[in-house]
Parts: sequence; structure tokens; C-alpha cells
Amino acid sequence: MKFNASMIAEYLHGTIEGEKNITVTNISRIEDGKPGTLAFLSNPKYNKYLYKTGASLVLVNNDFELERPVSCTLIRVENAYEAFASLLTLYQQSIVPKTGIENPSFIDSSAKLGTDIYIGAFAYIGANVCIGDHSRIYPQVFLGDNVKIGNNVIIYAGAKIYDNCEIGDNCIIHAGVVLGADGFGFAPREDGTYEKIPQIGNVVLEDDVEIGANTTIDASTMGSTIIHKGAKIDNLIQIAHNCEVGENTVMAAMTGVAGSTKIGNNCMFGGHVGVAGHIKIGNGVKVGAMTGIDKNVKDNNTIMGLPAMPYDRALKAMVLYRKLPEIHDDVVALKKELKELKEQLKK
Amino acid sequence: MKFNASMIAEYLHGTIEGEKNITVTNISRIEDGKPGTLAFLSNPKYNKYLYKTGASLVLVNNDFELERPVSCTLIRVENAYEAFASLLTLYQQSIVPKTGIENPSFIDSSAKLGTDIYIGAFAYIGANVCIGDHSRIYPQVFLGDNVKIGNNVIIYAGAKIYDNCEIGDNCIIHAGVVLGADGFGFAPREDGTYEKIPQIGNVVLEDDVEIGANTTIDASTMGSTIIHKGAKIDNLIQIAHNCEVGENTVMAAMTGVAGSTKIGNNCMFGGHVGVAGHIKIGNGVKVGAMTGIDKNVKDNNTIMGLPAMPYDRALKAMVLYRKLPEIHDDVVALKKELKELKEQLKK
Amino acid sequence: MKFNASMIAEYLHGTIEGEKNITVTNISRIEDGKPGTLAFLSNPKYNKYLYKTGASLVLVNNDFELERPVSCTLIRVENAYEAFASLLTLYQQSIVPKTGIENPSFIDSSAKLGTDIYIGAFAYIGANVCIGDHSRIYPQVFLGDNVKIGNNVIIYAGAKIYDNCEIGDNCIIHAGVVLGADGFGFAPREDGTYEKIPQIGNVVLEDDVEIGANTTIDASTMGSTIIHKGAKIDNLIQIAHNCEVGENTVMAAMTGVAGSTKIGNNCMFGGHVGVAGHIKIGNGVKVGAMTGIDKNVKDNNTIMGLPAMPYDRALKAMVLYRKLPEIHDDVVALKKELKELKEQLKK
Repeated sequence: MKFNASMIAEYLHGTIEGEKNITVTNISRIEDGKPGTLAFLSNPKYNKYLYKTGASLVLVNNDFELERPVSCTLIRVENAYEAFASLLTLYQQSIVPKTGIENPSFIDSSAKLGTDIYIGAFAYIGANVCIGDHSRIYPQVFLGDNVKIGNNVIIYAGAKIYDNCEIGDNCIIHAGVVLGADGFGFAPREDGTYEKIPQIGNVVLEDDVEIGANTTIDASTMGSTIIHKGAKIDNLIQIAHNCEVGENTVMAAMTGVAGSTKIGNNCMFGGHVGVAGHIKIGNGVKVGAMTGIDKNVKDNNTIMGLPAMPYDRALKAMVLYRKLPEIHDDVVALKKELKELKEQLKK
Repeated sequence: MKFNASMIAEYLHGTIEGEKNITVTNISRIEDGKPGTLAFLSNPKYNKYLYKTGASLVLVNNDFELERPVSCTLIRVENAYEAFASLLTLYQQSIVPKTGIENPSFIDSSAKLGTDIYIGAFAYIGANVCIGDHSRIYPQVFLGDNVKIGNNVIIYAGAKIYDNCEIGDNCIIHAGVVLGADGFGFAPREDGTYEKIPQIGNVVLEDDVEIGANTTIDASTMGSTIIHKGAKIDNLIQIAHNCEVGENTVMAAMTGVAGSTKIGNNCMFGGHVGVAGHIKIGNGVKVGAMTGIDKNVKDNNTIMGLPAMPYDRALKAMVLYRKLPEIHDDVVALKKELKELKEQLKK
Repeated sequence: MKFNASMIAEYLHGTIEGEKNITVTNISRIEDGKPGTLAFLSNPKYNKYLYKTGASLVLVNNDFELERPVSCTLIRVENAYEAFASLLTLYQQSIVPKTGIENPSFIDSSAKLGTDIYIGAFAYIGANVCIGDHSRIYPQVFLGDNVKIGNNVIIYAGAKIYDNCEIGDNCIIHAGVVLGADGFGFAPREDGTYEKIPQIGNVVLEDDVEIGANTTIDASTMGSTIIHKGAKIDNLIQIAHNCEVGENTVMAAMTGVAGSTKIGNNCMFGGHVGVAGHIKIGNGVKVGAMTGIDKNVKDNNTIMGLPAMPYDRALKAMVLYRKLPEIHDDVVALKKELKELKEQLKK
């Protein structure tokens, strides 16, 4: 799509400085803007880029003062950052979502399909599957038997959802996600081999959940592994069987949660965190990246470290870990000095 | 399927207390049991849930004493946990496995297919592939040329197996698994670029191996990367080229093993473990979560920590890591005190 | 394919000792060589295997001295390792790449396809996709709308590439890779829920990039997440939105890079490394396995540890971490001794 400066200025209630008819077809960052794109300038650290940007159109704050002429057209607005964000959202909403059923796809005759949905080619829709209205199932997605999908759900290409899983409204599931694979449960036999424990539960995503690419969430042994309303789970995360992740909890990439652990609401997890099994993390807990959590954590704690400890303590411990060679030297020196002193005193 | 209390009691050689004709169609945990489900009570900690569970039918031990009336029907058995496990297995065995070939699928004319197999829609079966009897290949699976699959194997939706890999009998491969991608081998050129080293080997899974969702096991440079009989590998694990994992070794999610490392039999790995390349881990080794193993480990050792150390030492070191601020304060105070003492003595 | 000893000796300008007409069809390691295969002996540590190898043909150095008779045929060459590597490359080049379009596949009518390409069954080629000459798109690959693929690219089975991503010449993308999923960006609302920030950018792989199995690289919020020319990214790696990875940088499995971080050229990352967001790693930086990088790193530094520190310091700190129990004992003993000494002196 093409927009000219006047249309954008009118939409944003801004004023134009420069060429009114210049058109843009895309958005860019001011530091690497190309002709035909729109950028914004909000952070004064980036002012220097305005004078050399290739972007055709730049949003700036009303009170921004030019130091010298620029080659791009400016649109002055109250708040350049917010104006840009509103354009970003507008831009994305302008993309008409796909609808209809592409061929070939496999849709079991017992499946119930909502209105205005999209099913991409090579998608597999098993027996008794229900798909809500306005949902989009991209190509090569697998929905096992009895899977329930809510309204306005997007499941990107190649995600795999095992039998009996349930997905709430407005969820987004990225490519390569696997929901509902068998929990990792084996009982040791006397001869050292293992017997598989049947995993007959499922995975439930409540409404407004987003799951990042190639993340895996295992089915419960029985009952459900549950991701509660509004939780956001990044890429390459592992949630084991019988876990729960609370409402509006946000978890960065590569975090792993072992079996039967319950995580509270409104928590924030950095990347690469490991969480032991069968523990309970309270509400509002914040966890630094690469933390190893080995026991229960109470509400509203901020923790970090391997093993986890209070954040302030972890910051100190990490600084001192780097200083261990000096601390060790000090201890060795102290031992020597004290020994010498004692010997001197004996004389 | 529907079962009534009498049928279940008869199968378990149990006795009914309550409504003999009540029916159940599913299984649940006692703490969140719903009508129409069967639960069990074994751990006394959960006794309180018996009086408020919604489950219709609950298995209890013969010697369990009721404190007050319950609304559910009870079946008394010798051991409620074992009885429940046997029902769980029965329940899962009652699910009739899919058979037949769904359309469209791609099956090279040179492929050899066993009896009673299932091939899902959009599965790709390359040239000279052999699939044993009773094996199930779910939709969107890719089997490259010359892949060999044993009997009673399950390969879930979308798993990808490169050319020449071999899968033994009774293996289970979960969705999104990638077996046989090129090992990560590059020779540096003088100009800083890299030349790819051909990786012409394969991956071999021996019998009774289970591989978790989205795990990757790379092909050997030549010869085979081997997962030996009965090993169980969880989700999102990386096994690099030329590795071997021993019989009945169990590895939890997100563990990574670098190239050419050999891991022994009957080992247990916690999650998020890193193992260096070209080392040897003995038999019966136990490894705590988030451990970093940088050198050989002898048989039957239990290790933990980053870097790995004996388990007991690691427990102590972790406690002291949290105490580093106090240890440092002590050292600083000792230095000061000793200096003061020396100065005093000089006078 | 079958080769006899004479053909191979001629190709390598080597001399045969033994049966000239013996044929081989595959390559093996000398320690597990089977009849009908060719192996090599270069490292003297492996000399012992020569006398018991099952391989039919073994390359040895011209100056190698036999201690006793062998059952295999030898070919003597100037440098057995290099000769073997050249055969390995020859072997791989001898495999004729697939070409043509398998059915069923989904190719939008607006897609532009180069010459001599392969498109596997169940591959999905979206609107306006361009695919260069001699590129191979394996079965079940997804290419979203407007994706551009260069010449001589290989995309293995089931890789998923979202709309608008661009792949340079000679790239190799392994099975299960996801390129261009939404960056993990959410703005907190006052009620604790999150608003999704539109991610309208893409992923760009420059020429000669290789991406390992099940790795995920997210689309930029706007502009591009860029993997520069010649970079090699292993399996199960996460590169977040707005990142850049420099030319010829090599990254081992399970490393994660948080958003907006820039990594320089010719870096080497060990496995399981975590890199914080919004930081800058210089050129020529080397990073040990399981390192946590929390701030900028200057050119040509070698770092390791959690948190990252100079390599030599990290080696010492790790040794001392294992010794923390003894260091702590020393500090406790010193405190006691000093206290006793002071008390003695008071008297």
C-alpha cells in the first residue's frame, strides 16, 4: 500500500514540513531508513541520524528543533513515538487476513468449523475437532482428534497439537510449537529398563495466550497442563507435564519448567531459566536470566543466580564470584601472616 | 467409553461402597475431579479432597477409614495407587490405534511397507524406505531416502528423519523431532570464512528408545550417532554428531551434548545440562540439573554444578556461593583486624 | 556406487598394497570399519585399529610402517587425512541432487521459480515468492508470502519461513527451523495484561549462512533481524528480534541471544550461551560454553563464566568455586584463631 504525507499528517493530526505529496510504502528505523519509508525520531540520542537518514518521511515531536536542513519531509506531532506506534498498529490491521480453505487439506468429516476461518493447504484436522469463528489454521498444522480451538485464534505453519488439547479465544501459536506430547514419565524396572507411564491428560491454553516458535508443552499424566489467561511464552521453552503457568505471566526464550510445578500470576521470567519440578512459584515473582530455581518462591520476590537467591544478593555474589582469585589470595596471605605472627609471639 | 462401578470393581477385585451403577468415562485427579470421572486416593495428604471431590468414583485402600460420609462411590482395593495405574494402562490400551493409509500422502514406489501400519495424510515416504509391521507414521512426517523403521514404532506428526537413518523396534518419536541433520562441522579457511565438512553418516536409534518433542540428533560425520536400546530422551535436547548415548540412559529436557561424546548406560541427566565434546561419561552416572560437564566422568559418580563437581561438594559450594557477601566481609574484616593487631604489637 | 582400489589409488595418486580389485561402497571409521568400506589412518593413536579393522581399504601415509601383516588393502598417499577429506567431498558431490516438482505441492500462481529447482511434496509456496536457480525446497517446507530465496539454497523438510523473509545464495536451512516468527514484544497495560506490539519486520540471511535444525530467528519489530554473510548457526538456537549476527560468526547449539543485540564478525560461541538484550559484542570475540553475557564485549576478547569474565580469570574462578568449602573453612578457622590470639594478648 501507498500513503502520502498529507494522508498520514491528517490521520495523526500533525503538520507537514516539506514535500506534501511524497509517498511511503513501508516503515523503517531512522538509523537505517531507505527511500519510500517512514521513520520516527523520539529519543534525542538518535537526533544525528535525522540529518543523514534515507527515510522519505520522519515523525518528530512538535517541540523538536532542527539544527540544519534535512532532505526528508517531517511531520510534527504531539508525541512521535505514540504516533508511530498507532501507525504500526494501523499498518498491521490493514493486512487482510486470509480466509477460506486451501487444497489439498485433510478435514475429518466430524470436525466442526466456525465462520470466516482459514485453513491452509496440507493442514490436518482430526476427528471431532472444533474450530471457532475467525480462526486461522496455517498450512501444515496438525490438530489431533477432539482438539478444541476458540475464536480469533492464529496457529502458524506446522504447529502440532496432539489429541484432546484445548485452545482458548485469541490465542496465537507460532510455527513449530508442539502441544500435548507425552509427559516424560517412566517407572524403573528391576533390570534397569523403564516402563512408560501412560500420559492420558492434555494441554489447555486459556484465552489470550501466545506461544513462541518451537516451544513444547507436554500433556499432563491425567487432567491438564494449563497455561492461564494472558500468559505469554517465548520461543524454545519447555513446560513439562502437570505444570501450570499463571495469568499474565511472561516467560523469555529457552526457559524450562520441570514437571508438576505451579507458577503464579503476573510473573516475569528472563531467558534460559531452569525451574525444578514439584515446586510453587508465587504471584508477581521476577526471575533474572539463567537462574536455577530449586525451591518454592514466595509472592513478589525478585530472584537471580544459580542457585536462585534474592536479586540484590545475587548481584553481589556475582561480582564476588569474579573476584574469587583475589579473595583466595587474601585468605592464603592471611593464613601465612597469622602463622608468622603467632610464631613471632612465641619467641 | 463408559464403565460402571461394578465392572471396574470386578476387574480390580475390589468392593463397592455406594452406587453400583454409576458410570465413568474418564479419569481425573482427586483434587480436581469432575462428575463422570474416576480418581484414586493413596497419599494421606490428599484425604481432605475425598470429601469435596466431584469425581463419581474413587479408588481407596482397603484399610482407609472414612471420617464422614462422601458423595462419591468408593471402590476398596488392596493398593489404590497400583490399581489406578493398571486402569490407566488398560484405558490407554483400549484406544484402538489408527491403521491404513490416508490421502494424500507421498509414498515412493520403492518403499517397503509392513502390515497393519498407519500412514497419515501429507506424510512423505522417500525411496527405499522400509517400515516394519504395526508402525504408525503420523501426518506430515518426513522419512528421507533409505530410512529404516522397525516394528511397533510410533512417529508423531511432523517429525523429520533425514536420509539413511535407522529406527529400531518399539521406538516412539514425538512431534517436531529432527534426526540426521548435518553435524556442525566447518573447517576455517585463511580468509576467515568456513568450509563445510561433509557429514555423510546417519543416526541410529536402537530398540525401545523414546525421543521427546522438538529434540534434534545430528548425523555423524561418518558412521553413526547412536542412541542405544531403551534410552529415553526428553524434549528440546541436542545430541551432536558422532555421539553415543548408552542403554537405559534417561535425559531430561534441554540438555545438550557436544560432538563425539560417549555417554554410558543407565545414566540419569537432569534438565538444562551441558556436556562438552569429545569426553566420556561412564555407566550409572547421575547429573543434577543445569550442570556443566567439562571432562570425563567415571562410573557411578553423582555430579552437579557449573562446573561439575561431586554432588555433596556442589551442594556445599552452592550454599557458600549464596554466602559470598558474608565470606568477603569476613575476609575484609580479618585483614583489617590483623593489620591493627600487628600495629598494636609494634608499639 | 562401487569403486575399486585401483580407481581410488589413481584419483589420489597413491600406491596400492594388497588386492587391487577389492571394491568399496561406503566410508567408515577405522575403529568400526566394516567390509566393503574405506577408512583412513592418520593419528598414530589409532594405529592399533589397523590390525583388526573390518574395512576393506585403508588410506595410510607414505611413511607409515607396518608392524605386522594386515588383512585389508592399503593405499599409501602423501597425507591420508587430506586424501580422505577429498574423497568425502567427492562422495558427497556424486549424489545427484533432486530436481523437479513433486505432487501434491502448493505453489501460488504469482510465485517465480528459478531453473533446475526441486520442490518436494506438501511444500507451500506463498504469493510473490521468488526462488533462485538450483535451489532445493524439501517436502513440507512453508514459504510465506513475498519470501525471497537465492540461488543454490537448500531448505530441508518442514522448515517454516514467515512472510517477507529473505534468504541469500548458498544458504542451508535445516529441518524444523522457524524464521520470522513475531518478536517477543508486549506493552504492559495497567490491569496487568499485555498488549501485543506489532512485529512488522523480517529476517534476512545473507549469502553462505547455515542454520541448524529447530533453530528460531524472530522477525524484527521493524526493519530486519540480520544474519550476515557466512555465519553458521547450530541447532536449537534462539535469535530474538532486531538482532544482528556478524559475518563468519559461528554459534554452537542452544545459545540464546536476547532482543536488539549486535554480534560482530568472526566470533565463536560455545553451546548453551545466554546473551542479554541491547548489548554489543565486538569482532573476533570467543565465548566459552554456558557463559552468561550481561554487558558489551570488546573486540577479540575471550570470555567465559556465569557471569562472563575474561577466560583466564574464569578458569581460576571455576577452580575456586569448587574449593569454596575449603576457603570457607579457612575463613572460619582464621576468625577463631585471631579471636583466640587477641584474647591471649589481653591477658
